[in-house]
Amino acid sequence: MSSTVHATFLVAAPDQPGLVARLAGFFYTAGLNIIDAGNHTDVHVEGGPRFFMRMVVDVSGLSAPAASAALGGSSTRAALERAFGDLAQTLSATWSVRYGDQVQRVAILVTKDPACLYDLVLRQRSGELPCEIPLVLSNHPTLEPVAESFRIPFFCLPVTADTKREQEKRILELCRRHHVDLVVLARYMQVLTEEFLNEAPPVINIHHGFLPAFQGAKPYHQAHARGVKMIGATAHYATKDLDQGPIIEQDVARVTHAMGPDEMARTGRDVERVVLSRAVRAHLERRVIVEGRRTIVL
Amino acid sequence: MSSTVHATFLVAAPDQPGLVARLAGFFYTAGLNIIDAGNHTDVHVEGGPRFFMRMVVDVSGLSAPAASAALGGSSTRAALERAFGDLAQTLSATWSVRYGDQVQRVAILVTKDPACLYDLVLRQRSGELPCEIPLVLSNHPTLEPVAESFRIPFFCLPVTADTKREQEKRILELCRRHHVDLVVLARYMQVLTEEFLNEAPPVINIHHGFLPAFQGAKPYHQAHARGVKMIGATAHYATKDLDQGPIIEQDVARVTHAMGPDEMARTGRDVERVVLSRAVRAHLERRVIVEGRRTIVL
Amino acid sequence: MSSTVHATFLVAAPDQPGLVARLAGFFYTAGLNIIDAGNHTDVHVEGGPRFFMRMVVDVSGLSAPAASAALGGSSTRAALERAFGDLAQTLSATWSVRYGDQVQRVAILVTKDPACLYDLVLRQRSGELPCEIPLVLSNHPTLEPVAESFRIPFFCLPVTADTKREQEKRILELCRRHHVDLVVLARYMQVLTEEFLNEAPPVINIHHGFLPAFQGAKPYHQAHARGVKMIGATAHYATKDLDQGPIIEQDVARVTHAMGPDEMARTGRDVERVVLSRAVRAHLERRVIVEGRRTIVL
Amino acid sequence: MSSTVHATFLVAAPDQPGLVARLAGFFYTAGLNIIDAGNHTDVHVEGGPRFFMRMVVDVSGLSAPAASAALGGSSTRAALERAFGDLAQTLSATWSVRYGDQVQRVAILVTKDPACLYDLVLRQRSGELPCEIPLVLSNHPTLEPVAESFRIPFFCLPVTADTKREQEKRILELCRRHHVDLVVLARYMQVLTEEFLNEAPPVINIHHGFLPAFQGAKPYHQAHARGVKMIGATAHYATKDLDQGPIIEQDVARVTHAMGPDEMARTGRDVERVVLSRAVRAHLERRVIVEGRRTIVL
Repeated sequence: MSSTVHATFLVAAPDQPGLVARLAGFFYTAGLNIIDAGNHTDVHVEGGPRFFMRMVVDVSGLSAPAASAALGGSSTRAALERAFGDLAQTLSATWSVRYGDQVQRVAILVTKDPACLYDLVLRQRSGELPCEIPLVLSNHPTLEPVAESFRIPFFCLPVTADTKREQEKRILELCRRHHVDLVVLARYMQVLTEEFLNEAPPVINIHHGFLPAFQGAKPYHQAHARGVKMIGATAHYATKDLDQGPIIEQDVARVTHAMGPDEMARTGRDVERVVLSRAVRAHLERRVIVEGRRTIVL
Repeated sequence: MSSTVHATFLVAAPDQPGLVARLAGFFYTAGLNIIDAGNHTDVHVEGGPRFFMRMVVDVSGLSAPAASAALGGSSTRAALERAFGDLAQTLSATWSVRYGDQVQRVAILVTKDPACLYDLVLRQRSGELPCEIPLVLSNHPTLEPVAESFRIPFFCLPVTADTKREQEKRILELCRRHHVDLVVLARYMQVLTEEFLNEAPPVINIHHGFLPAFQGAKPYHQAHARGVKMIGATAHYATKDLDQGPIIEQDVARVTHAMGPDEMARTGRDVERVVLSRAVRAHLERRVIVEGRRTIVL
Repeated sequence: MSSTVHATFLVAAPDQPGLVARLAGFFYTAGLNIIDAGNHTDVHVEGGPRFFMRMVVDVSGLSAPAASAALGGSSTRAALERAFGDLAQTLSATWSVRYGDQVQRVAILVTKDPACLYDLVLRQRSGELPCEIPLVLSNHPTLEPVAESFRIPFFCLPVTADTKREQEKRILELCRRHHVDLVVLARYMQVLTEEFLNEAPPVINIHHGFLPAFQGAKPYHQAHARGVKMIGATAHYATKDLDQGPIIEQDVARVTHAMGPDEMARTGRDVERVVLSRAVRAHLERRVIVEGRRTIVL
Repeated sequence: MSSTVHATFLVAAPDQPGLVARLAGFFYTAGLNIIDAGNHTDVHVEGGPRFFMRMVVDVSGLSAPAASAALGGSSTRAALERAFGDLAQTLSATWSVRYGDQVQRVAILVTKDPACLYDLVLRQRSGELPCEIPLVLSNHPTLEPVAESFRIPFFCLPVTADTKREQEKRILELCRRHHVDLVVLARYMQVLTEEFLNEAPPVINIHHGFLPAFQGAKPYHQAHARGVKMIGATAHYATKDLDQGPIIEQDVARVTHAMGPDEMARTGRDVERVVLSRAVRAHLERRVIVEGRRTIVL
C-alpha cells in the first residue's frame, strides 16, 4: 500500500484560454487528486499577460491503473514528468516539480549575529520549516557554540579580499557534498561574487532595510539620519546586483524620534527574523516563482 | 459583436477528487475563458472537508458555436445556468452567479455620524466600489445635507420602540422599490429585528469593536476601562444574534494609556471606515461565501 | 471671570542640567498650571545632545496676583512671553508659543484628486482638526463643487511653466489676505519654487511613496516594477529639495503580486489620507519641532 | 570618583498644580540631573484626575556638596529616599525607586514550548533585556537541555492537583533563594493560586489571545471557530482572576479563512514572543505603573 506523497508543480506560461482546465484536467485524467491550487494572471507584463499556477498533487495514486493508463503504461515519477512536460510544451510553459518525500537541505551562512541563526533552527526544529539543516558556514568562529548546541556541523571559513574566490569555492564544495538545495544568508556580512551565485543553489538574503530605500551598509544609521518614522527588512533572492534581487517578503516596524540607531537596530532585528523565516518558508513550500525582477508568491 | 461581460460563479461543495478540473473543464468545453479563479479546501469542518471556488468567466463567448453546442443548442444565460446547475447537482454543490452588467444597488442606513457615509459614497464615486447607491435611509434628519450634496435621495424614517416594526416595513418597501441588493449599516444605531433580516437583502454592519471582544454598546468605553493597548473594528453580516454574524473583515489600531475614550473613538473611526469599505467591496466583487459562522473570502 | 485658555510652548536647547526643573519651575512660580508636558533629549546630534520640550500651560491664571508678581507687575501675554524669553536666553534655547484661542487657519491646495480634500474637511468639521479652512486653492476647476458643498471659498489659479512665478505670487497674496498659518498640499501636483517656500507659511505635503524610496513621479508604478511587498505614504514639510523635507509621519499597507499599479494606488490612497491627517493634526497641536532634516514629534 | 548610576523614580499622585515643577525641582535643588522624564495625567479616573511620572536621575552626583546640603547633611541613597518620601507625602503620592546597579533577577517558568524561553534568554544575552536569569523552572523536564545549553540552572517541579500548593511553595522558596525580582510565565501551562500570587514577586504572563476576547484555554481554536480575521497576544500581570490582570502590551497578526487552528498558532507564536519581550523590557526599565485594572506605560 502506498503512503501519501505530495508533488508540487509550479508553472509559468503565456496567458491563453483554458489553462486552468487543461492543467487541472491533466491530473484528473490520471486519477491524481489536486490537494491545493492557486493561480494568478499578470496583465502588467511587457510582451503580454503571463499565467502562473501552483498545484499540490497527491501522487500516491500513481500506482493505480488510471495513472498507468493515462501515462502510457508506466506509473513512475519519470513517466508523470514526461507526460506533464509534453503538455507544458504545447502551452509554451516553463515548469518544475518537487516531491514531498525529498526533504530540502538548507545551508545557513552567518557571521557574528546569532539572532537569525537561532530563529531559523528553532523554526526548523518545531516543524515550521520543512527542511534539514546539514551545516552552518561562517567566516568567523563566533557562532560555533550555537551550531554545536543544536549538533549541527559548523565550518569556519575566514575570508580576505585575496582569498575570497578560494573561500567561495570551498563553500560551493561543502554545499555540493552536503546536497544543499538552498543557501540562506542569515546576516552573512560578505558580498558574494557573480561566479559564486552562478554555481550555487538559490540564495536567499535578509537585508535590514526597507528596500529599495537604504541599500548598502548601515541601513539603520541611514534611516536615523533621514528621520523616517518606520523601518523595515527585506528578504530577497541574491543576485549579482547587490540589494537588487527579486523581493520575496518585507515588513516594517514603527520608530520614533526617541530611538537612536542602536534601538532602531534592536527593533529591526525582530522584523528581520520574521521576514526571513517567512521567505524561507515560502521558498521551501514551493510558493515562489521568480518573474524578472519580481516574485509571484502563490 | 458582443462586448466583454464577466460572470462570477461561487461554488461550495463537499470536497471530492477532480473538483477543480471538472468545474474549470465545464467552461473550457463551452469555450468560455476563466479570467480569474480561486479555491480553498477547508478541512476543519464538522461533517468532512468542504471545497469553495470562485470563478470569473468571460461570458461574451456565449454566442460562439462552441458554447451553443456545449449548452444543448442554446446560448442564453439561462442555458448556461441550467447546465452549470446540472453539474453542481452531481457534485452536491451550492452555487450562485452574478453578471458584471447587473450593477448592484446598495442602500445605506445611517443615524448621525457622517464618516462612514461620506467614505462609502466617495469610494463609489471614484470607481472603487462597483455599485449604485440609489438611496440613503436614516432614523434622523441630520445627514440629509450630505446625501443632498451627492444628489442621492434621502429618506428620514424616525423610529420609537412602538413604531419599530412599522418603520422596518417601510425600509423593506423602499429597498424593494429601489431594487436594493445590499443594505449597509454605516453606523445605523438601531438593532434590526429578526423579521426584518429574514426579508431583507444581505445586511453588512460595522461594529466599532474588535469582536468578539467588546460586544454591545459603547465599545470604546469598554476598551478604555479594560486598558487594552489596541482597538479595532469589525465588519460582519448582520444576523438575529447581535454582534454574532459572520465576520468579513477586521483591523486594529494601537492606542496608549494617554488616550481617553473620545480619542480612542477618533482613532477607531479611521479603522471603521477602512474595514467597512473593504468588506463592502469584497461582497460586491462576489468574493465572500458564508459557511456557518465563518466567511471564506476568495 | 476668565475662561480656560491653553498656551503651548515648544522649546529646543542644548542639553544641560536642570532644564525640566527650570522650565517647569518658571510656570510654577507664576502660578500657571502645566496641563501636559513632554520632553526628549537627543544624544545622536552632531555638536552635542539637544533637549526638546513641549508644555501646555493653562494661562487663565494670568490674571491672578501670583502671575502678576512673577512677571514684574504685568499679567499680559506679552509680559509672560518677555519673561519666558529671558529664561530661554539664559538656556540658549529657541522657543515659540501659540494660544488655544488663536485658531489656526489652513489653506488647502489641490489639483484633481478629491480624496485628501474631503478627508481634511470632514475631520475639521468633526472637530478632529483644530483649525479653520478659509480657502481651497487649485490649478484646476475640478474640485470647485466639493469646496462649494462645504461652503468654502475656492480659487482656481491655472498655471503653466511661464506663469508659475506669477501664480505662486497670487497664492501667497491669497494666503496673506486670509491670514493663513499653514498650507497643506493635498495632492497638489505642482512643484513649488524655493522663492515661494521662503515666503509662505509652513507647507505640509503628502507624498504617495514610502520615502526615501520612490521619490519623484508615479511612485506606485515604481513600486510595482520593483516588486515590493508593501507600499507607503509620507507626510513631510516641503523644502526646496523635492521629497527631501523633514518627515512628520509615515505608514504602509501590504500589497501582493496580484495588484497592478492601479490597485496599489487605490490601496495607497487610504494610507495617504490617514498619514496626511495625522501630520496636520500633530502640527496644529504644536507637537512638531523641526531639527535639521528630522522632526521631533512630542 | 563615582561612576554613573541611574535611579528610576515612579510616582503616582492625585493631580494638583505644580507637580512637574516640584518633582523636578527636588532633584534640581539636590544637583542631581534628570536624564529622562515622562508624565501623564489621566482625567478618566473615578475620584478625580491622577498624575503619573517617571524620572531617570543620575545619582552619581550624590557625593557632591549640593546633594549633601539639600538632603540634610547626608548623601546616602537612604537620605535621598527619605527626603523624596517627605515630598511624596505632602503630595499624597505613592512612589518607588530602583537603581541601575541593582540588576533585576528574573525567574522564567515554562512547560514544554521552547519558543518564548529561547526568545527571552537570547534577548537577555544580546543586552536587550537588562536583567539576570538565575533559574528556569518547569513542571516538565522537556526544556532542561535548552536551559543547559545556556548554562542556566533548571529545576523540574512536577505538579498534580494534590501537590499544587506544595509545588508552589517550592517555587516561592527557589525564588527567594535566588533573589528573584520578577517571575515570567513563558507559556507555563498552570493556573497559579491566589496564595502564590500574594507572596510572589510581580508575575508577567503571556496569553495567546487578544484579551478580553478568547479568554481561557485554546484561544486559537476559539478564534478559528469564530472566524476572526486577526489574532493576537496579550502580556499582562497575573492576578487571582485568570486572564483579567492589567494589560502591559498587545499585538496582532492577520489570518485568513485558509488557516486552521495550527497555522494560527504558528502565526501567533511570533506575536507572543514579541509581545512578551516588550512587556518584560518595559517592566525591567521601570516604565509600567499599575493603576487599578489598567497600566500606564511611560
